Amino acid sequence: MIELDFEKTGGLLPAICQDAETGEVLMLAFMNKESWEKTLETGMATYWSRSRQELWTKGLTSGNVQKVKEIRVDCDDDTILLKVEQIGGAACHTGHRSCFHKLVEGDKLTVVGEPVFDPKEVYKK
Amino acid sequence: MIELDFEKTGGLLPAICQDAETGEVLMLAFMNKESWEKTLETGMATYWSRSRQELWTKGLTSGNVQKVKEIRVDCDDDTILLKVEQIGGAACHTGHRSCFHKLVEGDKLTVVGEPVFDPKEVYKK
Repeated sequence: MIELDFEKTGGLLPAICQDAETGEVLMLAFMNKESWEKTLETGMATYWSRSRQELWTKGLTSGNVQKVKEIRVDCDDDTILLKVEQIGGAACHTGHRSCFHKLVEGDKLTVVGEPVFDPKEVYKK
Repeated sequence: MIELDFEKTGGLLPAICQDAETGEVLMLAFMNKESWEKTLETGMATYWSRSRQELWTKGLTSGNVQKVKEIRVDCDDDTILLKVEQIGGAACHTGHRSCFHKLVEGDKLTVVGEPVFDPKEVYKK
């Protein structure tokens, strides 16, 4: 198993998730050792939810799983880059394709693009 | 000034740096409020160095500054995405274009690509 420097930041490393085809950055989440190993084993992006304090296989609720196509690690072995196929077309819980849909324009944030799904429908909440 | 959620993680937010033209993810570093504001003011990517505990305008030593072309913020206002023009062609202190030059292949990491500069020459160390 590939050893990363989980000790550096108290056990959690940032993991960038990028669309393998388009290069669009979809989201950033955190991984602990367990989620890193589960991602390697299953080929499905699995993070550590800091708010829920539990293992989080992205898309188990919404169906929008992330199939891992390639994994890169940075020069310090403390940041992960996943290149994925995003099932369902959207990574963000708002229904937007990318979590990074807020653009800095002058001194305000402007939402860019439209949601590709209705969160109420997908999450049944 | 645009307010981000710096309180959430003790004052530091992850900032992804992506090549504005190619979409290649170049590096990830952290920003505190001061570095965020300095980045907005100067248009040069400025991070917080966790190891040196100081403001870090990327490239001041090597000359490889990052001119900010676009800034995105994520849905939770706690992650930053910079799209930059990387002066000097390389973001990584190893001389590689991207810090993410280690590819996961089976159970090992393989270095991909060649450095575009010699760190010894650039950093004079």
